Amino acid sequence: MKTLRKPIYFVSGEYTVSLGSGRPEFHPKKPRPGLEHYVAEAGKAVLAGLPGPEVIDEGVIGNFMAERFNRQGHLGAFLSLVHDDLRHRPSIRVEGACASGGLAVATAVKNVLSEQADAVLAIGVEVQNTVKAVYGADILAGAGHYAGERKAGHAHFFPDRFSQRAGAYKERFGAERTWEAMGRWYEQAVLNARLNPKAQEHANRLPDPFAAHQQMTPNPRSFCEHINLLDCSKVSDGAAAILVTSEEGLARCGIARQDAIELVGLGHAVGDLTAPPDDPTVLDTTRVATRRAMEMAGITVSEIGVFEIHDCFTITAILSCEALGLCGHGEGADYVAAGHTRRDGATPMNTGGGLVGYGHPTGASGVRMVVDIWRQLTGKAGDFQVEVPSDRPYGLTISMGGNDKSVVSCVFRRG
Amino acid sequence: MKTLRKPIYFVSGEYTVSLGSGRPEFHPKKPRPGLEHYVAEAGKAVLAGLPGPEVIDEGVIGNFMAERFNRQGHLGAFLSLVHDDLRHRPSIRVEGACASGGLAVATAVKNVLSEQADAVLAIGVEVQNTVKAVYGADILAGAGHYAGERKAGHAHFFPDRFSQRAGAYKERFGAERTWEAMGRWYEQAVLNARLNPKAQEHANRLPDPFAAHQQMTPNPRSFCEHINLLDCSKVSDGAAAILVTSEEGLARCGIARQDAIELVGLGHAVGDLTAPPDDPTVLDTTRVATRRAMEMAGITVSEIGVFEIHDCFTITAILSCEALGLCGHGEGADYVAAGHTRRDGATPMNTGGGLVGYGHPTGASGVRMVVDIWRQLTGKAGDFQVEVPSDRPYGLTISMGGNDKSVVSCVFRRG
Repeated sequence: MKTLRKPIYFVSGEYTVSLGSGRPEFHPKKPRPGLEHYVAEAGKAVLAGLPGPEVIDEGVIGNFMAERFNRQGHLGAFLSLVHDDLRHRPSIRVEGACASGGLAVATAVKNVLSEQADAVLAIGVEVQNTVKAVYGADILAGAGHYAGERKAGHAHFFPDRFSQRAGAYKERFGAERTWEAMGRWYEQAVLNARLNPKAQEHANRLPDPFAAHQQMTPNPRSFCEHINLLDCSKVSDGAAAILVTSEEGLARCGIARQDAIELVGLGHAVGDLTAPPDDPTVLDTTRVATRRAMEMAGITVSEIGVFEIHDCFTITAILSCEALGLCGHGEGADYVAAGHTRRDGATPMNTGGGLVGYGHPTGASGVRMVVDIWRQLTGKAGDFQVEVPSDRPYGLTISMGGNDKSVVSCVFRRG
Repeated sequence: MKTLRKPIYFVSGEYTVSLGSGRPEFHPKKPRPGLEHYVAEAGKAVLAGLPGPEVIDEGVIGNFMAERFNRQGHLGAFLSLVHDDLRHRPSIRVEGACASGGLAVATAVKNVLSEQADAVLAIGVEVQNTVKAVYGADILAGAGHYAGERKAGHAHFFPDRFSQRAGAYKERFGAERTWEAMGRWYEQAVLNARLNPKAQEHANRLPDPFAAHQQMTPNPRSFCEHINLLDCSKVSDGAAAILVTSEEGLARCGIARQDAIELVGLGHAVGDLTAPPDDPTVLDTTRVATRRAMEMAGITVSEIGVFEIHDCFTITAILSCEALGLCGHGEGADYVAAGHTRRDGATPMNTGGGLVGYGHPTGASGVRMVVDIWRQLTGKAGDFQVEVPSDRPYGLTISMGGNDKSVVSCVFRRG
């Protein structure tokens, strides 16, 4: 089993508004900020919590698909947009589809562990509203095996992949309870987003989000066979950033231990992109990565007080509860429907709205999750703060790329 | 100054043929292998030198632009194409334009230093012959600032960037001697490629490559103002791979120390992508990165016996000699023209052909360079072996992305 060779802390996290449909300031035909703006905004927000740019040794930028959404590669070389003084610092772009943000975090952690750096600025960014949704769906299909499964695939490739998972789950474990649980997850996402001013669904005024979900029957002709549009995470522009430090790095920043969280578990697992899932009702790679993270932390899931999981679709949340071991195979729907994952439940998940409620600027999401865990564990979550029980002082993240192919999971405790 | 907290070794390097125009087996209209093939071919070639896949803890895949050349992201999840048993190993794709291979190497090094892994398979890959050259030039422009300088830029964006550097150099330091040096670099690249069976220019039969270069006058209407087509690296498909290990990892592989090289210096510097070079006749970021690498190694350039530099264009080689400190500002042209960088010169460079002679499968190049240094320092370079003097037992690489914006430089010595 792997261990962390020295303490690693996370401090001063921030993220931007998740811009896209649902936000009052979003207009599809009006000009919007680009990648450069988001990298700078998120990075400068972190910097505002630090003594100055001189404490930052390196940068890591997680991004999935700027090459096609923005015709831009080489995002590591945007680091000095955060501050001129960061010019000539090492900086790198990392990518693992929608786990790109999780990989930015994992890479920053390894850079600190390597002792090549004591403080690494991890940034995640994506700007997706540059193309129409159906073209965007084709672009995002690059997270799957383009030369293989994509060729004969659905126009909305990833929604269809997870719709197939939902269909298999419904067939095996009951259509009605699955559909109810998917609706409850959507409801929870909206309720949490209403408490988070940066969330894309913050202004969602549906009187009964659950009822709205249940009424929107899946339609294979207009979208997908087993999920509806409300089951999907958003098309979003945004960025998130956080500083990853050693003990020396933390001291250099002059930040008190109680304003930091400590990483105690890191799990990273990658499946075979060219192979279909063995069982579509199981998130196999997520199970491996989260188990590794908890093993490294030396804890079980029952000791975790708050979660940020990768709800790219509502069905993914149900399957993630099972992959985490919070319930057995086939019991995830009941687990969610019973309200255990709500902010007043035993295992609050995605308290700031998650991918369905906050939004899913893909490369940013894995970093945004860590920011939300940092906020919850340090009491900085504002209106969406939950009480993390003192006997379950851990927070866990799951950042997933593709159809459960690249997964980074982290376990944190209060610094 | 940074140091390496433990010894790092490189073993069992391999690369594929660089496929593209010039190779007899290349035909633009016939089907060619894809990314999957190249990742598997290079990775399996490394594996053939190891006891088995169980010794590999992690993978890092460097790639620049598969999103646009191949509509494929998420290349980290191709690792298990090397061997089924690598499924669930951590794996990541890293990108920094044409320095993506160098970043794969640097990331693998940090992963070993972090003690999360004792042996990391670093792979670089690019498959570029999927589009016509002028579309490819637009795709590669994503290594520059697309929303900025690219918008009003040349159709052949990067050739034009370096053509402008060549023009500035010619104007300041003499057109004739610069042009002669560019021709000499081209000649050297072809002569070296003829000794390397994997090189794209291996079958080049020009009776006098230097004369051929000198006769092909730059033409701004058909291409660029200050360089010709022979000044350019190739459009290539290919991959390179090598294993990066700790001392424990090396022992686990059962590989003798003399068959490995040791990393003794690592320099990584990143400029501001949105800013033009301060002085087009200077490779500022390359200077910083190589100085860092040599400082960490505790050596000066005069102790280095063999070099692999990023000759994306012939002018870049001239400027790199200056950035390395082998000669003064404005003296690089004479340095190259005098033959110092030839295989029989004092500082042999790009002995297997380099980017102009071997080819430039962009994401692979930074890994391919390390493979060639490994070969030279361990006596495995076959027909292109040079004698590395015992009082200058070091090899240095420069992997550059964009217009001197991301640079990774490594210094190695015999294991």
